[in-house]
Amino acid sequence: MNDEKWMEFAFQLAKQAIGQTSPNPLVGAVVVKDGELIGFGAHLKAGEPHAEVHALNMAGEKAKGATLYVTLEPCSHFGKTPPCSELIIKRGIKRVVVAALDPNPLVSGRGVKALQDAGIDVEAGILQKNGHELNKVFFHYIQTNTPFVTLKYAATFDGKIATKTGDSKWITGEEARQDVHRYREIHDGILVGVNTIIKDNPSLTCRLPDRKRTPIRIILDTHLRIPMDANVITDKEAETWVICQDGDLNKKAELKKLGIEVLTLHDQWNIPNILKILGERGITSLFVEGGARVHASFLKAEAVNELIVYFAPKILGDPEGISAVMGDEALKMRMAHSFEIQSVTKIGEDVKIVSVPKRGGQDCLLESLKK
Amino acid sequence: MNDEKWMEFAFQLAKQAIGQTSPNPLVGAVVVKDGELIGFGAHLKAGEPHAEVHALNMAGEKAKGATLYVTLEPCSHFGKTPPCSELIIKRGIKRVVVAALDPNPLVSGRGVKALQDAGIDVEAGILQKNGHELNKVFFHYIQTNTPFVTLKYAATFDGKIATKTGDSKWITGEEARQDVHRYREIHDGILVGVNTIIKDNPSLTCRLPDRKRTPIRIILDTHLRIPMDANVITDKEAETWVICQDGDLNKKAELKKLGIEVLTLHDQWNIPNILKILGERGITSLFVEGGARVHASFLKAEAVNELIVYFAPKILGDPEGISAVMGDEALKMRMAHSFEIQSVTKIGEDVKIVSVPKRGGQDCLLESLKK
Amino acid sequence: MNDEKWMEFAFQLAKQAIGQTSPNPLVGAVVVKDGELIGFGAHLKAGEPHAEVHALNMAGEKAKGATLYVTLEPCSHFGKTPPCSELIIKRGIKRVVVAALDPNPLVSGRGVKALQDAGIDVEAGILQKNGHELNKVFFHYIQTNTPFVTLKYAATFDGKIATKTGDSKWITGEEARQDVHRYREIHDGILVGVNTIIKDNPSLTCRLPDRKRTPIRIILDTHLRIPMDANVITDKEAETWVICQDGDLNKKAELKKLGIEVLTLHDQWNIPNILKILGERGITSLFVEGGARVHASFLKAEAVNELIVYFAPKILGDPEGISAVMGDEALKMRMAHSFEIQSVTKIGEDVKIVSVPKRGGQDCLLESLKK
Amino acid sequence: MNDEKWMEFAFQLAKQAIGQTSPNPLVGAVVVKDGELIGFGAHLKAGEPHAEVHALNMAGEKAKGATLYVTLEPCSHFGKTPPCSELIIKRGIKRVVVAALDPNPLVSGRGVKALQDAGIDVEAGILQKNGHELNKVFFHYIQTNTPFVTLKYAATFDGKIATKTGDSKWITGEEARQDVHRYREIHDGILVGVNTIIKDNPSLTCRLPDRKRTPIRIILDTHLRIPMDANVITDKEAETWVICQDGDLNKKAELKKLGIEVLTLHDQWNIPNILKILGERGITSLFVEGGARVHASFLKAEAVNELIVYFAPKILGDPEGISAVMGDEALKMRMAHSFEIQSVTKIGEDVKIVSVPKRGGQDCLLESLKK
Ligand SMILES: [Zn+2]
Ligand SMILES: [Zn+2]
Ligand SMILES: [Zn+2]
Ligand SMILES: [Zn+2]
Repeated sequence: MNDEKWMEFAFQLAKQAIGQTSPNPLVGAVVVKDGELIGFGAHLKAGEPHAEVHALNMAGEKAKGATLYVTLEPCSHFGKTPPCSELIIKRGIKRVVVAALDPNPLVSGRGVKALQDAGIDVEAGILQKNGHELNKVFFHYIQTNTPFVTLKYAATFDGKIATKTGDSKWITGEEARQDVHRYREIHDGILVGVNTIIKDNPSLTCRLPDRKRTPIRIILDTHLRIPMDANVITDKEAETWVICQDGDLNKKAELKKLGIEVLTLHDQWNIPNILKILGERGITSLFVEGGARVHASFLKAEAVNELIVYFAPKILGDPEGISAVMGDEALKMRMAHSFEIQSVTKIGEDVKIVSVPKRGGQDCLLESLKK
Repeated sequence: MNDEKWMEFAFQLAKQAIGQTSPNPLVGAVVVKDGELIGFGAHLKAGEPHAEVHALNMAGEKAKGATLYVTLEPCSHFGKTPPCSELIIKRGIKRVVVAALDPNPLVSGRGVKALQDAGIDVEAGILQKNGHELNKVFFHYIQTNTPFVTLKYAATFDGKIATKTGDSKWITGEEARQDVHRYREIHDGILVGVNTIIKDNPSLTCRLPDRKRTPIRIILDTHLRIPMDANVITDKEAETWVICQDGDLNKKAELKKLGIEVLTLHDQWNIPNILKILGERGITSLFVEGGARVHASFLKAEAVNELIVYFAPKILGDPEGISAVMGDEALKMRMAHSFEIQSVTKIGEDVKIVSVPKRGGQDCLLESLKK
Repeated sequence: MNDEKWMEFAFQLAKQAIGQTSPNPLVGAVVVKDGELIGFGAHLKAGEPHAEVHALNMAGEKAKGATLYVTLEPCSHFGKTPPCSELIIKRGIKRVVVAALDPNPLVSGRGVKALQDAGIDVEAGILQKNGHELNKVFFHYIQTNTPFVTLKYAATFDGKIATKTGDSKWITGEEARQDVHRYREIHDGILVGVNTIIKDNPSLTCRLPDRKRTPIRIILDTHLRIPMDANVITDKEAETWVICQDGDLNKKAELKKLGIEVLTLHDQWNIPNILKILGERGITSLFVEGGARVHASFLKAEAVNELIVYFAPKILGDPEGISAVMGDEALKMRMAHSFEIQSVTKIGEDVKIVSVPKRGGQDCLLESLKK
Repeated sequence: MNDEKWMEFAFQLAKQAIGQTSPNPLVGAVVVKDGELIGFGAHLKAGEPHAEVHALNMAGEKAKGATLYVTLEPCSHFGKTPPCSELIIKRGIKRVVVAALDPNPLVSGRGVKALQDAGIDVEAGILQKNGHELNKVFFHYIQTNTPFVTLKYAATFDGKIATKTGDSKWITGEEARQDVHRYREIHDGILVGVNTIIKDNPSLTCRLPDRKRTPIRIILDTHLRIPMDANVITDKEAETWVICQDGDLNKKAELKKLGIEVLTLHDQWNIPNILKILGERGITSLFVEGGARVHASFLKAEAVNELIVYFAPKILGDPEGISAVMGDEALKMRMAHSFEIQSVTKIGEDVKIVSVPKRGGQDCLLESLKK
């Protein structure tokens, strides 16, 4: 049958907009009539038309009696744009094929119901798995109101991310470092601890020549120790937020004057709360890039959704070198955080391993938020 | 042409005897006449006939006027068996095709010359690269008189091989652990430090059901601290050698009574010398399995020829966990030991990475021996 | 660079409309600004907007300063729609990347020049080869004004397409026969000789469940012998044209009454002229399906652009069975028509071989038309 | 387990002797003890030692208590060599693993029984399918006493193997023609009709530079019309047999004087009888190379075991060209001989298709012999 063929085309369209739709999902739509393609579209940017609108615009008058393929359930509520379900009905679409239902439990299935009530034949679940995979960030965010967290580090074969003096230039080669920039491009926020700022003074921007954007830089800085001349404070290359528990009020004022956002969490200083606040501020995806203690905090909070490790074929050999993750005492090997490997690839002279937590970090996070 | 086809068959024959010919190389031989296969053989065991002998025996009378394909230059000196070059000449072979010359610089090319002097047409260098790869252990041994060293460890994603209390059961899964046994089978010796014996009391045998052999267990034990009830002392599953710098004479006598070989190095206590002694005793290949300080010693001596790391998708997160390699202070990342990755494979739930040193460890070893 | 990535996306869009744009080419367009996708479209149907129009519509105001990727040179003349070059200029596009120039020698390059004259930076030739392959039918048609001819037959291993009595049910299996329907769908016309109609009375329609269309049925019938009760005359499943050299006037009138088009060629009765007339009537692609003498005529006229043979693993064994091609006497094997194989695939229980003529049939055809 | 590994090695050994063991099968043997390879061999030539003998010779004394892997059931009767079962028992083999039983129904299983009676543990059927495939020629021959027949032709896309005047130089390209020589090398006999000799005067030899042999040339010549100056009569490149039904006695005598074998079949002139006689004379495999009427006779007699067709991308277009198979009238397509395709490969500029009859030709042949 051709349903899968057209839905796959809709997914291809959706994917092209990766990295530019946040906090909205990637959605593609295709209109077909009498076997012929008469319209197609994708959602390209928050605040702009939904995929269905573009596809129906291209189809024009011909939409009457046609079939609409859409990768995500059409919306049925007024947001920044009027509901797509109304438009679909008005244009006389006869049949709607949907890959995944809306992940928001409050409205999931409502779009389908609105269409069915209008007498439209609706089929849901075609290539549903692709729909979830494509929008894993969005699905996570809509269900938890916290960002999807990707933890990334580059280590030697003996697990070191720097020497004892903090030297880490360079562990991995050019290709692996380029790959990191591709991840930065598609994340809303990039998070590091203040020690990383103090030691390395990184700019934390996406430096791909054709980058769609560079993420918001978020600095975890309990006592507001960030140097006023840090690149992330002065370079204006991207927005910078500093999250602290306490800290000098004058320094806060000074930072604000420089355009830096300072968020203060007094008695709620923990990872779940930090993610909650980032979620409220529209960060749907967070790329955690160090250092070792920050990694440990996120792992301990079971807040990591994806783990990316780049291994360089090197052995530092110094047990006092900085280990990739510096957390609590662990006396038994079975106390280690467990992952499931999704892919292993050679990247330049290095190896890249993508994993997901064995017991879904995000669910556990949800549990902790409920308390 | 068919030369490559027949030489490839000779290599196939040679490979079948892997793990059983030490300290001799893997060699295959094929005899062809008028396009027909008339004999073939391989060297199967030190002290037994060379590949050429088996192949010429099978060929019998027909060998006269035939072509002989052999993966390694035929010997021209009297060893445990009379020289193959003589036999080849006597049987009336007309043409000899050789893959690799004898790696021993003292005799390399002599076999070829003996054949040529007898009027035989000799072609050398066909698939020579395969010849070197197949016998990398033998070539290394014959040129350095020291074993080819393979360093292996299994670590978490943060480079730990055990918790601070020494717990390491189990880092990797069943498949990776089986794979280790395949390596044990094909090595002459397996080496660990005495601390590994004290902490884990391992048996260090190859436990494959159809194993060809189990390697000699070699314990690095400076002050002869090995417990008398250690498995490697009492289980009789394989030979055990203890190498020490000093130690109680009574204990040495007791160990010898139990059939344990004790080698004492006084003022020559270092890795190059240890390898030299092992080489003298016929260990052509050595599998180094821990612990972290032993790894560091071999790396520091630039004595590692191949590195095998199994990474389990786990993060221990405790900086006091045991790092895979515990050696000297390294203040700069560029001081790390560098490798080149040969292969990356998923093995069960884990990842296996095989690498070789970037600056050939064996050459450097040679240098240090010359001093 | 991202230019190729976006152009490939444009090609993906273009391809989706295969079989529905005739006599127009397949064209895709993409608009990108600051690394972000802001609009995309394809040409979907003759008479409807060009790809650039859809893409610029989706981009809206944002098009100003953006880059436009388009698989074919934008038009610069008034056709059924105003010239795209004007629209591109008006919308403030800053850079245009083009895959292939317009194949019409009269206007080729004019679109590019119009854009350049307006100060737009134009880059042509990116993935140009893909552009020619995608629109090989259109390029052929625009340069020769005659249809691109695909000759197809299904034969036994001894080259028979029917028994001497005309029985041919079935040579190939279900999969191969389905494949033929996919070709019918994407051709403007399907041509057979009148003997095929008389013997088999085929319906010659595309019977895919989701077919975009079914081609015009064209019957080569020198003396207008077609039976009035033939399926192609009575079934109304698709348009039918009959091409004759002479024939009864009453029958012609009767056929016309039934809605059948009758084209009469008196002294111009040959394949080049027939193709010329079909071209004038908008047939850009012609699928020739038999019988053996019709195949021979097209081959003799060097009018075949692509040859598709399905071989069934059968041997009829009767030399009087109908050979796939029945043409002139050929005394030497080197007089055979030569092809170059493009692909060989197993299809169900049969084999499908796609070839192209060794000396371009279309060029030779052009030569003969010039006379 | 390692049983499959060692049996696969035995098969590798067996395969190397392809084309040189007729009328004997391809057999490989391997001896393993305590996981170590201690001997291996293959049967290389009829009249020479069996595979087991070579393998046990290499193993020598060590064979005692070992396991023997052999691809075909060891023989238990006195032939040109003493029975292998006796030798196996005498050498003290403890376990025998067999792939395929002896195909000769009169002795099948006897070898196994003899070994078991001697207390040897026997396992049969490991990789049995490989055993049958490897020796399909031998199995066919031993069960029917007639050769395994491979029918081969090279045709144009319209099924012609020559023009009406007999010109066929060249239909296929160099690679396909080389491939034919590889088939000639591994067949005992090559058969053509006398018309092919008269028209093309071929030499019918294998012309590979390193050929193992060139097959016996067998000419089907009902009335002994073969020209006395035909290459196959005069060139002495290989043995030639002429099979006739009648013919001049003087000519017969003259042919004999030239060393040509003349076989006369009076009232038994049919394909099954011809195959029977060839079988009696030790032809285990027959390569039928034309012409069209000979092809038809073999197909009609259901005597074809394998069909190899080379298709050249050419169309002759002349219905009077010579069809690949010229047999009886066939009024319905379902009367065609049916095959199942085993492989399709591009070979140079041509296509090679290997098929087997759908209803096993050999069984039907057996039936006709029983009458
Ligand atoms: Zn919507
Ligand atoms: Zn030797
Ligand atoms: Zn246009
Ligand atoms: Zn035997």
